[in-house]
Amino acid sequence: MTYNELSQEQRRATLTQLRGDYISFQSRGLKLDMSRGKPCKEQLDLSMDMLDAALLADVKDSTGFDSRNYGVPDGIPECRALFGELLGVPAENVLIFGNSSLNIMYDLIGQYWTHGTGGGAKPWSQQRSVKFLCPVPGYDRHFGILEHFGIEMLQVHMTAEGPDVKVLAELVADPAVKGMFCVPKYSNPTGVTFSDENVRAIAALSPAANDFRVIWDNAYCVHDLREGGESLLNIFAEAEKHGHEDYFIEVISTSKISFAGAGISVLAASKANIAAVKSRLAVQTIGHDKVNQLRHARYFRDAAGVYAHMQRHRALLEPKFDAVLECLERELGGLGIAQWTNPAGGYFISLDVPKNCAKRVGQLCREAGVVLTPPGATYPLGIDPNDSNIRIAPTLPPIDELETAAELLCLCAKIAALEKLEG
Amino acid sequence: MTYNELSQEQRRATLTQLRGDYISFQSRGLKLDMSRGKPCKEQLDLSMDMLDAALLADVKDSTGFDSRNYGVPDGIPECRALFGELLGVPAENVLIFGNSSLNIMYDLIGQYWTHGTGGGAKPWSQQRSVKFLCPVPGYDRHFGILEHFGIEMLQVHMTAEGPDVKVLAELVADPAVKGMFCVPKYSNPTGVTFSDENVRAIAALSPAANDFRVIWDNAYCVHDLREGGESLLNIFAEAEKHGHEDYFIEVISTSKISFAGAGISVLAASKANIAAVKSRLAVQTIGHDKVNQLRHARYFRDAAGVYAHMQRHRALLEPKFDAVLECLERELGGLGIAQWTNPAGGYFISLDVPKNCAKRVGQLCREAGVVLTPPGATYPLGIDPNDSNIRIAPTLPPIDELETAAELLCLCAKIAALEKLEG
Repeated sequence: MTYNELSQEQRRATLTQLRGDYISFQSRGLKLDMSRGKPCKEQLDLSMDMLDAALLADVKDSTGFDSRNYGVPDGIPECRALFGELLGVPAENVLIFGNSSLNIMYDLIGQYWTHGTGGGAKPWSQQRSVKFLCPVPGYDRHFGILEHFGIEMLQVHMTAEGPDVKVLAELVADPAVKGMFCVPKYSNPTGVTFSDENVRAIAALSPAANDFRVIWDNAYCVHDLREGGESLLNIFAEAEKHGHEDYFIEVISTSKISFAGAGISVLAASKANIAAVKSRLAVQTIGHDKVNQLRHARYFRDAAGVYAHMQRHRALLEPKFDAVLECLERELGGLGIAQWTNPAGGYFISLDVPKNCAKRVGQLCREAGVVLTPPGATYPLGIDPNDSNIRIAPTLPPIDELETAAELLCLCAKIAALEKLEG
Repeated sequence: MTYNELSQEQRRATLTQLRGDYISFQSRGLKLDMSRGKPCKEQLDLSMDMLDAALLADVKDSTGFDSRNYGVPDGIPECRALFGELLGVPAENVLIFGNSSLNIMYDLIGQYWTHGTGGGAKPWSQQRSVKFLCPVPGYDRHFGILEHFGIEMLQVHMTAEGPDVKVLAELVADPAVKGMFCVPKYSNPTGVTFSDENVRAIAALSPAANDFRVIWDNAYCVHDLREGGESLLNIFAEAEKHGHEDYFIEVISTSKISFAGAGISVLAASKANIAAVKSRLAVQTIGHDKVNQLRHARYFRDAAGVYAHMQRHRALLEPKFDAVLECLERELGGLGIAQWTNPAGGYFISLDVPKNCAKRVGQLCREAGVVLTPPGATYPLGIDPNDSNIRIAPTLPPIDELETAAELLCLCAKIAALEKLEG
């Protein structure tokens, strides 16, 4: 029976019982964190051999350049080749950066803001109005960058296939619309992988702005949770069919492959975009950490090495996702108060509770010792218009803690839903 | 006898002989590089124990935080403490960044450009005119950042005590003057360490702009070439006497301490400036490479560990500087055509040849296989108004190559001087 179908009396009795359960949760003095997509200790342990000094017995890269010294701002050739293979782009279209793809994205928007996208385009800061397309729910740190630069965020609904392409096509007719941030594979937080048709439609978009740039944040490109995983079309191959390759900049990092704090990050782009980035980079730095690049190139060797490594991550993460999903099904299934995703990869489960309930669920969880990503965070400016989306990050906690946290979350979702029905 | 005192006949005979020597240099097919301040292989070898995995047997920092994971954007506490001790500032006034202090400086100017210095100050990009003080000769990459953002560069003559403080005091009366880039110790390229009086005068400057910022690039803070070295006053201690601590941002890196490509960098600043930087950093990155921070903190332990390490650098570098200085003295001494510095630290010797001769010397060297820093690079926009300054970088080449390169450089300086006297 769904909560809606309960009599008022039944509802009150259920709520009383749930509140009792909640009080006993509170008495346990929990301190659990499901707020951020952080790898767990066991995942980080998987890459410890990368720290072996033997890997650096020869400190020279494949061209004989001493990785310990200044220089090579593009990144060492074997790293560019490795990630080129992984992303299906030529090595010359790949640049290797420091430990943070977020930093790459911030710097890209900063560059476009102060200097424009290149080829004579006006800096965005000197244009009357600058707007960005934001598939929602989405990644809070993308929205944070746009907010920081004062870029207006236009929300576009995420379908099960990717962002609503009809809406995208309409919105890009406005020359003030300068681009889009998206996570095309195992999207944050929905887990959606953009369908082939969706990618083709995005590649075919004809923006009015000639300085239009999509930041294709392929953060979960190799992060399958299920056997076989899902596949994403190569955006550059599709864009080239329309001469649109300059509209796309792809970024990834090894933060969730090797070390979240000490990985390397990667930018893939067209020849023109690579040149524009390099012109800024030549002023900004003498080069990124090439010793760490060498570690990564030698440890993984090639794309197959990365895939094999990701199977070990999967072995650790799949049971965690299953534990949360089982709890959601067991506790919330059939109640008619919640919907959630069952992602084939990535780092999140996206949970929708009834309208105007997400903040209340977050508050209840917090007051019983479980920290969630702040409800609202998956929307621009932290405002979920429905106040219904909750991002669950199951990767960090040990499985027993995760089960406890998921139970509490379900309990809070039920309480909030019943409170709302009570009015 | 100086070249000036030679008869026309003597000059011609000398020039003919020198040109013969030059042709035999050319026939040797040299390929030598004295262009950049890069450490040599032996210097990089000094820090190889830092790559030992045993140093990371415990991956947690002093607070128990796993350095391999996301977070801690300020840098790990033991690193902040180490560099605080080295710079004479409290650890809470220190932030640890990635491998490039140039990147810190670029990002600072970028932040001031788009968001202002904080505390309600208007972004520099929204102010009518933005000018920076540039002690000359100076560091080309500082000028590069200013040029990139379209900031007007006002040249200020470097005296033997530091930049001409009378001129500084006059120029800061203009509210469009927003700051200064400088290398206060073993300055690039002059080797000058700002005198106590000079530092005190800079600390006491009363700029008309309340969003005035001096980037105190203390790149050579521990880079003595001579026993005892020179000492620099603590800029923050001096600035605080006038309530001017917000005017100064100090940066250093371990690029010339550990690895030029894989070190860490450090920002020290007032509470208000730290807060302003952190507000941007929170949007830009989830944190810098903390595993590398841990390596540095554990390898050096404390300031004394850094000083001891720098003695080993000094043992490698002092003979190289001596070789160049001996050659300059032997070949150019008493000819009245050149002046050069004898630095007590840092990475450069600054050579002044007769007016309008530096580019010619650069060309002659290049055509005989020796690359110098392009003459002019030590001035804003690459234009040395006298065309006389040449930056010599003796650290990278092996000593025998360095001697050859220095000989050729002296030969070219003599040829250029005589050509000029010929008219």
